[in-house]
Parts: sequence; C-alpha cells; structure tokens
Amino acid sequence: MIQKLIENIKKTNAPIVVGLDPMLGYIPEHIKKAAFAECGETLEGAAEAVWQFNRKIIDAVYDLIPAVKPQIAMYEQFGLPGLTVFKKTIDYCKEKNLVVIGDVKRGDIGSTSAAYAAAHLGRVTVGTQQLTPFGEDFATVNPYLGTDGIQPFLDVCREEKKGIFILVKTSNPSSGEFQDRRFMGSAGSDALVHGEEGANGSDSRTLYEMVGEKVAEWADSCMGETYSYVGAVVGATYPEVGKVLRRVMPKSYILVPGYGAQGGTAADLAPYFNEDGLGAIVNSSRGIIAAYKQEKYASFGPEHFAEASRAAVVDMIEDIDRALAGR
Amino acid sequence: MIQKLIENIKKTNAPIVVGLDPMLGYIPEHIKKAAFAECGETLEGAAEAVWQFNRKIIDAVYDLIPAVKPQIAMYEQFGLPGLTVFKKTIDYCKEKNLVVIGDVKRGDIGSTSAAYAAAHLGRVTVGTQQLTPFGEDFATVNPYLGTDGIQPFLDVCREEKKGIFILVKTSNPSSGEFQDRRFMGSAGSDALVHGEEGANGSDSRTLYEMVGEKVAEWADSCMGETYSYVGAVVGATYPEVGKVLRRVMPKSYILVPGYGAQGGTAADLAPYFNEDGLGAIVNSSRGIIAAYKQEKYASFGPEHFAEASRAAVVDMIEDIDRALAGR
Repeated sequence: MIQKLIENIKKTNAPIVVGLDPMLGYIPEHIKKAAFAECGETLEGAAEAVWQFNRKIIDAVYDLIPAVKPQIAMYEQFGLPGLTVFKKTIDYCKEKNLVVIGDVKRGDIGSTSAAYAAAHLGRVTVGTQQLTPFGEDFATVNPYLGTDGIQPFLDVCREEKKGIFILVKTSNPSSGEFQDRRFMGSAGSDALVHGEEGANGSDSRTLYEMVGEKVAEWADSCMGETYSYVGAVVGATYPEVGKVLRRVMPKSYILVPGYGAQGGTAADLAPYFNEDGLGAIVNSSRGIIAAYKQEKYASFGPEHFAEASRAAVVDMIEDIDRALAGR
Repeated sequence: MIQKLIENIKKTNAPIVVGLDPMLGYIPEHIKKAAFAECGETLEGAAEAVWQFNRKIIDAVYDLIPAVKPQIAMYEQFGLPGLTVFKKTIDYCKEKNLVVIGDVKRGDIGSTSAAYAAAHLGRVTVGTQQLTPFGEDFATVNPYLGTDGIQPFLDVCREEKKGIFILVKTSNPSSGEFQDRRFMGSAGSDALVHGEEGANGSDSRTLYEMVGEKVAEWADSCMGETYSYVGAVVGATYPEVGKVLRRVMPKSYILVPGYGAQGGTAADLAPYFNEDGLGAIVNSSRGIIAAYKQEKYASFGPEHFAEASRAAVVDMIEDIDRALAGR
C-alpha cells in the first residue's frame, strides 16, 4: 500500500492528505437541517449530516489528492451511527481510488493489538470465512507500550501489504511534556543534527528520538520497494525535530499534521522530505474541510462549501510545491 | 463514579474486575455453532456469539464483583456488529449495577481527545439534544501526547463524575522499552523507595515515574471524597514498580492488569493497595472468562463455562483476600 500511496502522490503531484475530521461545527446549517429533518436530533441525524458533508467534499477534491485521513474520534463521538459513517466514508474513498489512512491512534499489548490490527488493516477469521472489519489502508499507532504493541501491526502490514504511521512527535503544544524528555548518557541528537557519528551506544536522546530509532528498526523489517510500510507521525509545528527525525528514519514516510490551522508553514516542511522529493505527506483537516469559514474563501458561502474546499486544496498544493522547489 | 466503584468494592469485598475480552477462541463451540446457524459465518455471527458468551458470564458473576472491563479491541475486530455488542454489553452490565471500565486506551490532542472523552464518558450535543454515545463509567487513556491529550478527559470527568485510568506502567514484557528509560539528572525512584526526600527538582526518573507524577497532579485536580476520578494502570507483573507508583500517586486508584494468566500473583499485589485496604482493583480476563479451559475448572465442561467462571471469581477473591490479610 506504500507503493500505491507513492504512485498516487506522483500522479497528483500532491504530497498531501485531507483530514476528514468532521466536527458538527464545521458542517453548514443547511446540511444539518436536512439530516435532522430526516433522522431527528439523534446520533443517526448527526451521523447523516457528517456523511452528506464528507461525500460532497470527497466528490469535490478526490481527483486532486492521493489520500484522505478520517479521524475516527470524530465518528466515535456519534456512537454506532457515527462509526457506521466512518466505515461508509472509508468505502467511498476507496471507490474513488484514494488511499485511506485511519487516524485511530490505537495501541495495546499482544493479542489486543492484534485485534486492533485486524480491525483496521487486516481480516478476522469467523468459522471458515475471512472478513474485513473496517479495511483502511494505513492506521496510526501509539508506541507507548513498546514492541509488544507494534509487532502485531507489523505482522498484518507484511501479510496484507498495509501500512502504519507510528506517533513519534505530535503537533500539539504539550507534546514535549514526555516526548522531548532527554534520557541519561552522552551525545545524541546534536550529533545527528550536525551529521557526526550517530548516537550508537549512547543514551542522551530524547524520547521522540528513541521512538524514532525503533521506528527505523521496525521500518527496516517491513520494506516496500523504496520506502517502508512503517511510517511515522511528526508534527509540522516542530520543524527542527522534523529535520532530525528525517535522518533517523530515512526509509519511513512521515505523516505531518499541524500544517495551516495549527501553525505549521510550507517552508517549515521542506526538511521533512527526502532528496527524492518523497518521504512526507502533509495533512490538513479544518483548513480544507472548513475552508468556507475562512475569510479567504468566504465568498463561496456555506452552500458552496465543497468548492471552497477544492480551492483550498489547490492553494495548499501550490504552497507546498513552491516550498519544495525553493529549497 | 469513583464513589460508586469504592461502594461496590466494599459491598462485595472484592477489589477485582472481570475483563470481558472475548476472543472467539475462548467461546465454547456450542455457542458459536448456534450463533453462526442464526447469523452465518459473518461479523454479525461472531458478534452474536460474543454477546451470548458475555451475557451468560455476566449473569453468573455479577453479584460477586464490583466492576467489569470490556476491552474494546476485541469488539472492534468484528467491525460494526462487534461494536454494537460492545455497547449492548455496557448497557447490560449497568443494568446489573456493575461499574463499567471501557478499556479503550484512547488518546489524542485537543478537540480530538474531547471527542473521545464525549464518546466514552460524556455526551454529545446534537441540535438541542444531549446524547450518550457509549456511556462507560471509566475509560483507560494513553498519556504519550501529554496534558493536551488528558485535559479534555479531566473536563468530562468533573462534569459527569466519571473517571479515567491513565497508562503508567503496562503489564507486557516490552513495556520497559520506553516506560523504564531513565531521564537525565540525579536522585529519583530510589529516594522514593527508601522514603527519603522526594525527587523534586531532579530529573533522574523513569518515564513511568514522570507519567505517575503527572497523574498525581491531574488526580489532585479531580478529587472525589477520598480518591480521585483520575487513576492509573500499573501492571501486576512489575511489583517493585507498583510499590514506587503507589507512593507517587496516593490518591489514585490503580487498575492492575496482569494477574493470573500473565504471571502476577496475589502476593505481588499487596503493595498496590493503600493502608485503608483500598486504592487498587485487580483485573483478570482470560483467567475468568475462559476458566473452563483450565485444568482446575475442566470438570465443568464447555456447557457449564459460566459456572466455571463463577468458581474462578470466588477463588480469585479468596486469593487476593488472603494476600491482603497476610501483609
């Protein structure tokens, strides 16, 4: 699936992913009104509004982009009807030939992680049947529990040719609370930044570097043609960290949240890419799906929210293209 | 809800929780056969088997125990039908007056964590309505993203009087990979173990201690009468760590996985409890729900699997009671 992601990126010339994180506040009133009229002010009504909103945005942008990233929390908050629309959104995007990254941030131990991996990337055996529960192409995974938690995902990735993005450095303001803490020892990231000998045998590394090094190991064990099935999440809001982690995990695709609404600029993002122009995919959620709420795209109006999203996608692609050309 | 948990524990004199983690392999053939006959070898069929299995176990043990802990991954692996049974299980357990701990290990940033908190512990607003998506009493939460990820759960806990258990030290073999790493500085856990002056201003702490200290802070901000709404997960398989963390987080209930099947013994668990005999709740999943597969309970046979579970609950309560009396 990493091959398909790369092919889609090359075909669209757009290393971007649209985050389908539909909070009710983003959805135009006319859509909610119609959904509530049909299903009531219920979880079903909310889910129907989300579905109509998603469908129109996907229809408006699918030919421009390689991938989407539905954030499952935004569906889970509407209970079972919400998760039904999560599944419907995945299926619809796959019909449109989009790569689907399930932003699920799951992570547990042994057989429990295996169940999550089957749920999102693999199949479950029921009697004589092999069935696909959700069927995303990629999933995001939390590393806190260590190799036990990751291994079942690696097994499924190999078998199904699917992929994962492991959280390494997240885009939020307090991500440093644990992720930036520095472990005992000497040398470390400075050596990496300055291109000196690596941090082998030394322990003065931050938690995110240590996780990044594990990602590199896991990535080596799960290679596609040029990139690994195992990628990493590194926030756009910490470009210096992105530079370090790019070197630590040369074979991993980096999924980059935090562009736009969270403050990351295209110029910040150039170091997340490899020399081949590949290796990173930049997410924007609110900046695309709620574009009609921005002054820049306000002239579209809520009725034409999906066209506003298309305009925002075009602008984002240009913005990143310019930054990569200029490096 | 922490009050209700404590009341239930006192009433049953059983600081235990039954993990409802129904892998298909645990479910007796006659239950699967009936479910597949009714719904086919489908996700619906698997979910129906899980539901019949759960219901019989709950009926057999609910009067002996204060709480259950359904592991959502085991339901998520059967897609939407599986999650429908997750919700049905929660509702059924609440009817039986059990406290329900959703083992969901969610964790994300800002508005996304808020969506997870609403999904599992709170309510969502849809038009003029306030609706309850899943409605657990407690949820487990992953700390890797820092305070941003936890704060929305704290807000919901305060508002709804619900609770969380934050992963601090997990029970799996590779939990130490990141959690045991020691940060730069001097002093630390040894001082705590030996009752000396705390680790203030120093940084030679492990990641689990650092997370434990944050848990203690968060716990202080969310107090019930004697214990906090904010608890922690600390595995039974690392009793020395349990001893340290008990002191680091005096107001937090500790949810203890790893007893029994994973190797933790009752004697190991005494230090997880406070002097008041409270402060910890020990989980067993497989050891209870698949008891009929153990030699000790084999005489019940698969037909009487639920009675085997009841016998295993009685034995577990005695085992822990003895260990606490003997300290």
